[in-house]
Order: sequence, then C-alpha cells, then structure tokens
Amino acid sequence: MPRTLIADTVNKVGETVQLAGFVDTKRDHGKVTFIDLRDRSGKVQIVGYKMLGELKVESVIQVTGEVKARPAAQVNPDLATGTVEIDVKSYEVLAAAQDLPILVDGDGREINEDIRLQYRYIDLRRERLNRNIRLRSKFVRALREGLYAQDFVEIETPILSQSTKEGARDFLVPSRLHPGNFYALPQSPQQYKQLLMTAGFERYFQIARCFRDEDLRADRLLEFTQLDLEMSYVEDVHDVMDPVEKVVKDAIAQVGGKLRDAQFPVYTYEEAMKEFGADKFDLRSEAEKADGTLAFAWVIKFPFFKKVDKSDAAEVIDGKSGWTFTHNPFSTPEKEFIPDLLAGRNIDKIITAQYDLVCNGYEVGGGSLRAHTREVLEATYKIMGYSQEEIEASVGHMLRAFDLGTPPHGGIALGLDRLVAVLTGETSIKECVAFPTSGSGSVSVMSAPGAVTGTQLEELGLSVKEQA
Amino acid sequence: MPRTLIADTVNKVGETVQLAGFVDTKRDHGKVTFIDLRDRSGKVQIVGYKMLGELKVESVIQVTGEVKARPAAQVNPDLATGTVEIDVKSYEVLAAAQDLPILVDGDGREINEDIRLQYRYIDLRRERLNRNIRLRSKFVRALREGLYAQDFVEIETPILSQSTKEGARDFLVPSRLHPGNFYALPQSPQQYKQLLMTAGFERYFQIARCFRDEDLRADRLLEFTQLDLEMSYVEDVHDVMDPVEKVVKDAIAQVGGKLRDAQFPVYTYEEAMKEFGADKFDLRSEAEKADGTLAFAWVIKFPFFKKVDKSDAAEVIDGKSGWTFTHNPFSTPEKEFIPDLLAGRNIDKIITAQYDLVCNGYEVGGGSLRAHTREVLEATYKIMGYSQEEIEASVGHMLRAFDLGTPPHGGIALGLDRLVAVLTGETSIKECVAFPTSGSGSVSVMSAPGAVTGTQLEELGLSVKEQA
Repeated sequence: MPRTLIADTVNKVGETVQLAGFVDTKRDHGKVTFIDLRDRSGKVQIVGYKMLGELKVESVIQVTGEVKARPAAQVNPDLATGTVEIDVKSYEVLAAAQDLPILVDGDGREINEDIRLQYRYIDLRRERLNRNIRLRSKFVRALREGLYAQDFVEIETPILSQSTKEGARDFLVPSRLHPGNFYALPQSPQQYKQLLMTAGFERYFQIARCFRDEDLRADRLLEFTQLDLEMSYVEDVHDVMDPVEKVVKDAIAQVGGKLRDAQFPVYTYEEAMKEFGADKFDLRSEAEKADGTLAFAWVIKFPFFKKVDKSDAAEVIDGKSGWTFTHNPFSTPEKEFIPDLLAGRNIDKIITAQYDLVCNGYEVGGGSLRAHTREVLEATYKIMGYSQEEIEASVGHMLRAFDLGTPPHGGIALGLDRLVAVLTGETSIKECVAFPTSGSGSVSVMSAPGAVTGTQLEELGLSVKEQA
Repeated sequence: MPRTLIADTVNKVGETVQLAGFVDTKRDHGKVTFIDLRDRSGKVQIVGYKMLGELKVESVIQVTGEVKARPAAQVNPDLATGTVEIDVKSYEVLAAAQDLPILVDGDGREINEDIRLQYRYIDLRRERLNRNIRLRSKFVRALREGLYAQDFVEIETPILSQSTKEGARDFLVPSRLHPGNFYALPQSPQQYKQLLMTAGFERYFQIARCFRDEDLRADRLLEFTQLDLEMSYVEDVHDVMDPVEKVVKDAIAQVGGKLRDAQFPVYTYEEAMKEFGADKFDLRSEAEKADGTLAFAWVIKFPFFKKVDKSDAAEVIDGKSGWTFTHNPFSTPEKEFIPDLLAGRNIDKIITAQYDLVCNGYEVGGGSLRAHTREVLEATYKIMGYSQEEIEASVGHMLRAFDLGTPPHGGIALGLDRLVAVLTGETSIKECVAFPTSGSGSVSVMSAPGAVTGTQLEELGLSVKEQA
C-alpha cells in the first residue's frame, strides 16, 4: 500500500491508509493508547487498542489503519487533522528510539547550546527550527525565481581561491601539490563576480558560501551564505537598488512576511547618523516589533575613506597612508567625486557609490557601483598608500581585466542567514542554519576541528608547533 | 534613454534606440565602419559614418542610433537580427580594450590551457563557453524546480567539517582558535544528509560543493559540484531511482536535450560487466553520438565489498581485514543479504542496494539505500576489520543518531559538472565550470596557491618545512 501523508488523512475518512512518521507524543489509557504521529506534513492522532503502548516517543513507525471522523465534541481545533483519527490495525517499528538527550517539544532556548549543537539532528526536529529551515528553502527559491525573471544567470565561483585581504582573516588551505603554499577560502566572490562582468554575462547571481576566520563574537559564523549579485551597464546606485528591492519584496511576500514600507525609505549616511547615531537602525514602533513587521531601509552616500583605526591590524596593513576604505576598495566614488579621487585630494570628503540595506536594526546587505577602469582602482589604492608595485601585486589581475574591456557595473551581497533570522523573528542566525558552528568554532554533530596524522602533515610540508 | 537589448532591435524598425555591448567584429570601408555589437542577448550590425573607426575589438561602447530595415539583398541569415542594422548617431566608449591576449571568436581548443585559465574572464566571452555556463544555470534551475515539485527542501550543510575518510584525500583547514587542529572540506555531504533524515526532513536536496585533494588526473577538479539528495521511507532502490529519473528527464527536456530512451534501461552489475566489460558504458550508436543524443542507464546490484587493492593507501587504511566497500560504507545490503552481513559470512556474495547512473560512457551519479540501524552499520565496519572502539571513533555520532530514531532512507549524488558536459557535448568538465583549476592545481585568474606570511602561520601554530 502506498504511504499517505498525514496532512491528507482529513480527506480520506472511511479509507484504510498507511502512514509513517515519528511518535510525537503518547498517552496511555489502560488498553487504549493515543499517539500523535508526525511526518513532514503534520501530525495526526492514531489510536491503538491493546497495542502501541510499548513505543517510546520519537521512535519511527509505520502504521496501517482506518481514518475515522471524530465526534464533534472530540474535534481537536489545535491540529489541522483534528477532525479525524486513525484506528490502527497493524504497525511496524522502523526504528526504535532510546531516551532522547534533549527534548524537542518546547522552543529549546533553555537548553545548553553545546548540547543542542552536538545533537543538532534531534534539535532540528523541534517545530521552531524545522519551520525556520523550511522557510529558508522557500525564501531562497523565491529570491532565485525573482532573479531568473530579471534575466540573471546563476554562476558558481571557486571556494579554493586566493587570499584577497577583504577586511577579516582568511581561512587558509595548505596545498599538497605545492607544499608550503596555501589556498584561501573566499570572504566573498567579489573579484570573480566583477570578472564575470568583464566576461560579458551582464547579470550574475549566486547563493554563495563565504568564510571569515574571526574571533567568534556574538552571532557570527565561520561560514555564512550570501545572495551575491552583479549587474553591468549601471549608471546610478538605483540601477542596482531598484531591482534588488523588487526581488527582496517579492520573495518576502511569497513567504508571508509583513513589510512596514511598500517602498524602502532611503537615508543618506549623514541623515542616518544624525537621526539614529548609527548607519543601521530600527524603524519599527513597539507595536510593529510585536507583530513581526520588517522595516527595511537603504543607506547611501557613505564616505569612501576613513582614518585607519590603529588597533585594527587589518586596517593598519591596508591603510599604509593612514587612510583606508570604509566599505570596499573596489567601489567607485559618486561621479562628481572622481576628479578628487584621481587627484588624491579632499580625501575625507569623497563619497562612495555604496548602498547598504538595513532591516530591523541589522545590516542585511551592502553593495556599490564598482571601479571599472584602471585609473579609478589605482587611485583608490594610491590614497591608501600602496606603491605601483604593491598595487600590481595585490590587484594586478583586476587592472588587467579592466584594460581588456570591462563594462561599468555594480552589485550587492545580502546576508542570507540574517535575512532569514529577521523573517523568522529569531535574534540568533544560528537558529536559521541547519548545522552551525559553536561559539568556540566547533562544528555541530562531528568532532572538528581535530588532530590529523603525521603523514597528512608530511604530505602538506607542514609541522605543528608545540603549544605553550 | 533606457537601454534596448540587441535581440529586441528587430521589433523597433524606425525607432531611435540606445544599445550597449562589446565590439565583436569590425570592418572598415573607408568612411563607413561596420561593427557587430554584442550584448547578452545577441549581436547586431551597427554602421558608423565617419565614426567608430578608431575602436578596438572587444571594447565596450554605448551607442544611440536608428534601427533601419535592411534591403532584402542585404539581410544576414546568420544573425537573429539580420533583418536590421543600426545607423549610429552618437556613441560613447565605456571601456577601451587593449589587444587581447587570446582570441575569443573560435572555439578556443587550440589555445594553451594555462593561458586560457589565466585569462578566463576573456575566455568566457567565447560563444561556446558562454553558452555552456548559461545552459548550466538553466539546467540547475530546472532540476531545482523538479525537486521542489516533489516536496524536497533545499538545505545547506557545512563546508568546514570533519575528516570522514570517504576514499580520497581530504583538504585540511587549520584552525586558528584551536591551533594544531584542522577542519576538513567535505568530499560529500553524506553524513549530514543522513542526519537530516534523522531530523525528519524526509526529502532533502542541495547543489553541494565538494572537494577532493587528488593528484589531478585528466579531467578531475579539486572542487566539484553535485546534486545531492536524500529521501526517507524508501524500501526499494526504485523508490529513489524513479523520482530522480523523472527530475533528470524533465530538466533535460527543458534545456532541449535529446534522450535515447524514454525510460532509462536498468542493468545489473553482472549484466553490465558481461555485456560491456565495465560498469559504465556508452549505449549510443555512431549516428546517435553524432547528433548529441544522451543515453542514460542505471546499474544496480553491485557487490558490497571487494578485496583491498594494496597499492591504494586509502583502501589499505579502510580495509584492515582485507575487505573494503566498493561504493559507500553507509549503504545497506539488498534485504535478503542482511543476515549474511550481520553474520559476516559470504562476504564476496553480499549485494548492496546501490544504483549508479551512467550516461554516454560516464558515471554521472551514484547512490544507495542506507544503513539506518546501528546493527547494519556496525556489521559493515566489522567486516572491514574495525574494532568496536575504532567504529565508535569513526562513525559513533551516526550510530548515536540511529539509536535515537532514524527512518529508513536512501539518496543519490549526481555529478553536475559531468552532467552539464554530456549535455553540451563537451569531453572536459572544465569547459562547463566558470573558473576551474588547472591541471597543476592552480586556480584560474588569480595566483593561488601561494605563500603566506609568517604571522599567518604563527597564528595557526604551524611551520612550513624546508623543501628538499
């Protein structure tokens, strides 16, 4: 007999069906045992007479039984299948469960995080997490379809790549074929996506995995996912912001999200700092916060450069002159500031064609129109104090690509983990990732990072230093 | 004036339009210059009187001009826009191109591969590659939609993970937060996807990036992409093979692929070896080869175990007893062989519930029904000579998950790079990847792998050995 999904039982009163799923809850009433059986489509009450009593919750079973309408007084309004129950004729235990290390019937927030991550495959049975992960899939599908409709092409870019010094530390991957040399995991596909514009694809996107070897502050992940896109023949920041806003709004509508503003308000950096004292802010009233409203806004007209923060090692390296970029060295200034950039003057006044997307107090995305000529990119690096040789060593391949004809272009990256978190009302992005890393950088379920063998190190031409 | 896509010019005779694109070809006839202008939608002839002559091919320009119908005698049947040409009124050079290091108007096969990869962003302008990458996007979109229609959920699994000894060498990633310890990049999401079945998702898929640190034989990539999926409550190999076959066939139809067989023929391993002397084979006639037909077939009923090949280091490690798995240690035997597996007898006769998908002589996918109980997985490892302690150390987390209730399940992984190669008629998968690695393991465009600084190594607790 083919399996029936639990949600479909309501339409099969009087029929004999086969169901399969987890024992969600169990109540014994002497000879009669009531079980809520759970599959991907929902839950239904199944009733066993002189049977089912020995089953432990969270065991996996297959049952055959008759769908019976419940008397009006016994209808369960809390269950989508509350009008029926299954009179079990026979059943088979597909996988017996031992006692669970964590309970899955609450929201789980009170459970120690390390235990939740160790047993993530149990934690994910929790309705809240299950819903988050399913909503993520649906949301990403909607984003993709919105982009396809606008003629974007999805293109994969490498994970094994070159260190590109994008602000945070790179994860390194030792090369066995070139001992003593390393690949780096990408902090973003920034350079590859610009090169796809050189290649003429015009409209690229990717749901891209990115990596940052950071000290794990609250709610940062070692690996994260961004919706990454780039467009050619753009002249104005709105040429990117408008299609992105449309795709985001349509996708949110498809997953039932509630927007505060039909059109996202736009603030300049100066206005935002004056009004909120920060370049990310929460526009919601208390009532809007309570009902899960999403308040998006754009922030534009950021300063291109800032004075180096001497306590930040990466900034000191990048900003040899005492100046470094605020957002992205590959950005172009707003048109009227290009002469200043090329001349290296009024550096603190130069405005970059950058746009950040904020939502409910978080930065959920950022992008810019890019340098697409040698002159502009070189001028940016010169302001940061790079010599011509250092520029060639750092971004020579980009300059070469610009020399060979690169259309004007711009793009954006949206933080998908954070977007799903605001959509689901979660504060922690970990609640929206199936297998996140722990606060100490350990992966969920498995034992990593871990030791490796001497042979493996030998092959890589490496040795591990004694730890003090 | 908004930009018009070149393909749309045929419907705008008499109108003034603005176009943007690359100078594809140029012919000077004294005062008149003819250019084929190329954008993502196609090419069109533009005509300049006393202008355009100074442009180098592959420069990026924006032109304003009038769409004129060509006289019947001058219609170009080779161009979709061959009925019109653009009488240029004015134009702007958006990015002047210098002389190109490689030509992009042929199929490029005669050009040195290293040069092609160094200038991949130019190589990708080539019509053949451009078409391959666009078709890949379209094909993946169709696969995804087919899976969504069958109620699959897309879920991302970690890239920073644990070494799982799946046959090839793992890439390792040193941990800075845990000096001397390493993450491994996944060879497949095998264990995570099985754990998603424990979590109750029932139908998972992912377009997953995977990694193998292999000596680069012909046409292997260090990183590759697979369509990875897993399903719960499957009893028979056809419960996975049938929906997968449907998704693949529908997606191929959507990109205009031509199938030899409306239903993929199924061979047992024994039949395949007898008929073709191999477990992958090409069913096409010479005529079918010439017209790009795709000949898929399934191969089933493989032996579960084989004698260890003593020249293969990985097999020697896995097969301590002299036996190792042929395909996947997480597979389950076909039902009737479970008693033999549990008893560790007739080892050479045990048939695994494995299914491989072959196409045009290549293996394009493989999967199996899985062990979902402690007994079966332990028995498999015992046959390979693992002690109980070694089993716990290696797959203890999987056994624990099985103890906590895991539905019977099975899945498959399809090699997406190879599938796109057979679809596009390419022999090399590199022609279907935007930025592939070279034969020596160098990444395209950038200089990686490369040296890193002493500070970086210091932070990771590593030192590089002097190379002899």
